Amino acid sequence: MAVIASTVPEACSRAKRASRELVRAPTAAKDAALRGVAELLRERRDEVLEANAADVEAGREAGLEESLVDRLTLDPARVEAMAAGVLEIVALEDPVGEVIERRTLRSGIELTKLRVPLGVIAIVYEARPNVTVDAAALCLKSGNAAVLRGSSTAERSNAALAAIVAEAAAEAGLPEGTVELVSGGGRQELAELATQEETVDLLIPRGGEGLKAALKAVATVPVIYAAAGNCHVYVHGDADPEMARRIAVNAKVQRPGVCNAAETLLLAAAAAEVLPPIAAELRSAGVELVGDERAREAAPDAEIAPACDEDWDTEYLGLRMAVGVVDSLDEAIEHVNAHGTGHSEAIVTSSEAAADRFAAGVDAACVYVNASTRFTDGFEFGMGAEIGNSTQKLHARGPVGLRELTTTKYVGRGTGQVRE
Amino acid sequence: MAVIASTVPEACSRAKRASRELVRAPTAAKDAALRGVAELLRERRDEVLEANAADVEAGREAGLEESLVDRLTLDPARVEAMAAGVLEIVALEDPVGEVIERRTLRSGIELTKLRVPLGVIAIVYEARPNVTVDAAALCLKSGNAAVLRGSSTAERSNAALAAIVAEAAAEAGLPEGTVELVSGGGRQELAELATQEETVDLLIPRGGEGLKAALKAVATVPVIYAAAGNCHVYVHGDADPEMARRIAVNAKVQRPGVCNAAETLLLAAAAAEVLPPIAAELRSAGVELVGDERAREAAPDAEIAPACDEDWDTEYLGLRMAVGVVDSLDEAIEHVNAHGTGHSEAIVTSSEAAADRFAAGVDAACVYVNASTRFTDGFEFGMGAEIGNSTQKLHARGPVGLRELTTTKYVGRGTGQVRE
Repeated sequence: MAVIASTVPEACSRAKRASRELVRAPTAAKDAALRGVAELLRERRDEVLEANAADVEAGREAGLEESLVDRLTLDPARVEAMAAGVLEIVALEDPVGEVIERRTLRSGIELTKLRVPLGVIAIVYEARPNVTVDAAALCLKSGNAAVLRGSSTAERSNAALAAIVAEAAAEAGLPEGTVELVSGGGRQELAELATQEETVDLLIPRGGEGLKAALKAVATVPVIYAAAGNCHVYVHGDADPEMARRIAVNAKVQRPGVCNAAETLLLAAAAAEVLPPIAAELRSAGVELVGDERAREAAPDAEIAPACDEDWDTEYLGLRMAVGVVDSLDEAIEHVNAHGTGHSEAIVTSSEAAADRFAAGVDAACVYVNASTRFTDGFEFGMGAEIGNSTQKLHARGPVGLRELTTTKYVGRGTGQVRE
Repeated sequence: MAVIASTVPEACSRAKRASRELVRAPTAAKDAALRGVAELLRERRDEVLEANAADVEAGREAGLEESLVDRLTLDPARVEAMAAGVLEIVALEDPVGEVIERRTLRSGIELTKLRVPLGVIAIVYEARPNVTVDAAALCLKSGNAAVLRGSSTAERSNAALAAIVAEAAAEAGLPEGTVELVSGGGRQELAELATQEETVDLLIPRGGEGLKAALKAVATVPVIYAAAGNCHVYVHGDADPEMARRIAVNAKVQRPGVCNAAETLLLAAAAAEVLPPIAAELRSAGVELVGDERAREAAPDAEIAPACDEDWDTEYLGLRMAVGVVDSLDEAIEHVNAHGTGHSEAIVTSSEAAADRFAAGVDAACVYVNASTRFTDGFEFGMGAEIGNSTQKLHARGPVGLRELTTTKYVGRGTGQVRE
């Protein structure tokens, strides 16, 4: 069974119709569909790899950058990782039907607040074809129909993968339209998808700042923007120097290209003497350092270049870090709130009072005391797979997992009550 | 102490600075401020009424419609109702600091998910000056700074009321900027407020469809749109006729101008014989009826006029109701999902299976079984005061009370953990 090629409104309408049935789909049917996806991925691995090879070849011919070719390329291990990822989602608890609150109103009505699917979720993503499977699986388990819009460079790979999901869904008795794939298209098609207010309940972009900006300009459907992370590590005056070094280095170096990596190291003036060993280790890990006057003075051997204003607001996503010295905890909190993106922020301190004040005062999705910013992650948080990280304050803040792909509904059961 | 008149960006910046302190404000300080508001409202009742009389006079001179003059006009009872309303908010539980989840991660980090204030909430409202106090009180109790933008027709009343809130807040030790009032201004000022992305965390419009449309066109800050309600009562084939009559009449007639009043009555073909007595009572309550062919045949004496397509999609907010007959429960669910606005929907039935299917299949914030749609309300739901009703699916769905004016924050406490 192939996914039917169709216009954006047609695909969204089919997904909407499917979503009306999916709200009632039993967990067993959804899990059977997911197990089917994993099986078919393994059975049809060679077909998938063939489709992918054609995409890669076409991409190379069209002069696609090597880093994008790498993201696009599948191999047996990557296909197996997709199958394993889907089976992990089977093991997660179904959020649909969870009773959030239950009470008897003064009218005698029994009121229940339940978790229910959102309806139709559109996912817009760039080169990586594995998102086709990951996103569809998360939507399916949470009872949502998915409209997937990958990039045109991954067209054949995405079609092969979406066909597998659609076939497994159909075999498990789930409705046509459970998974819809719309072709890559251009900005116009993106705008069309982002304005299907009658049918699309949520749109999640997974891509760079260009994609986000394009959506911000046109979207009328609700969007959860995956987060940019300008994250900080603040070393308080009484921090354990060894812990400060370990956390600062880990937050910057362990995987510098991701949104929960740290971009700025702040030190209390009283902790400035811990900078030289930290700076030395950062430099030996290949990190280029820029800093304010006091940071440069505190570690004269570390070759810290002068920071410009922009440095404090930049998500480097690479081996570069800004270092600043502040006079007080409040100044640190102010700096983080002024320059951070509200993603993940850390303090290293042995003072409980300082920890509490930092945790309360910093306005971010995740605040860490004596731990690396790198822990912001659905798996690390015990939520299982995530579809992104939100720095928005409404609906979902932090990792976006199965629960965050649901909404709620009040059901009131009465015996004929009317309002007086 | 008066509220300082200032530009929109200035007012929002002051509110943002205040919000950084308000996140840490103890419940006792917030409650003291609210009690102060109630006291000052009583002490300065005459000043408030004088300011209001000047607004009313200016409105009359400018030819303001009589219904708007009525909304604008305060009297001693209305001022007392405001004070009493504020004291009810004192009695509500402070949502800030509530622990939503707590767990130990595999890394050993103790992770807590806490409820925290959103930050700055902008409220845009029309003639009623009581919203100045109600909205400010809800924002204050939930730890948010409020930027209020009332209509220019209520300028003097709003200034007097906002000055009372600001003075009480200052006396309780809360920061300047806790409550900011920006003058009515025009559409340009509205657009300015709706695009303060750096400072405004949420905008809530309380007004008609014109205001919503104006905001939809320009807003870049997050908005919760108060709901339009095209609500239905569906009478299933096995409904108790007397209960069906009581609920249908109550849902339509008890207060027809509000969003949870019913606009359409749907009957199963098997329940068509209950229509004549219901229609008779609706008509004697002054309700004009329109209906489809089968409804008109089922109650030939009720003078049901033919309904046009538009009737099924109209929120009358008055004494008019559309009546339709459907062949099945699924057809009823489809009709509600196609024409409803996802606000409040009711089924009257003695079948538990039908009730369950309707509750699961109807895509709405609130679904009632054997009860009137009129119960969708913060007070009736035991949440206390509400700032509106959301039919959006993200963040808040249903009554928007104190909890819905908060967001969440993860705080992870470690002992030096780094990511491997």
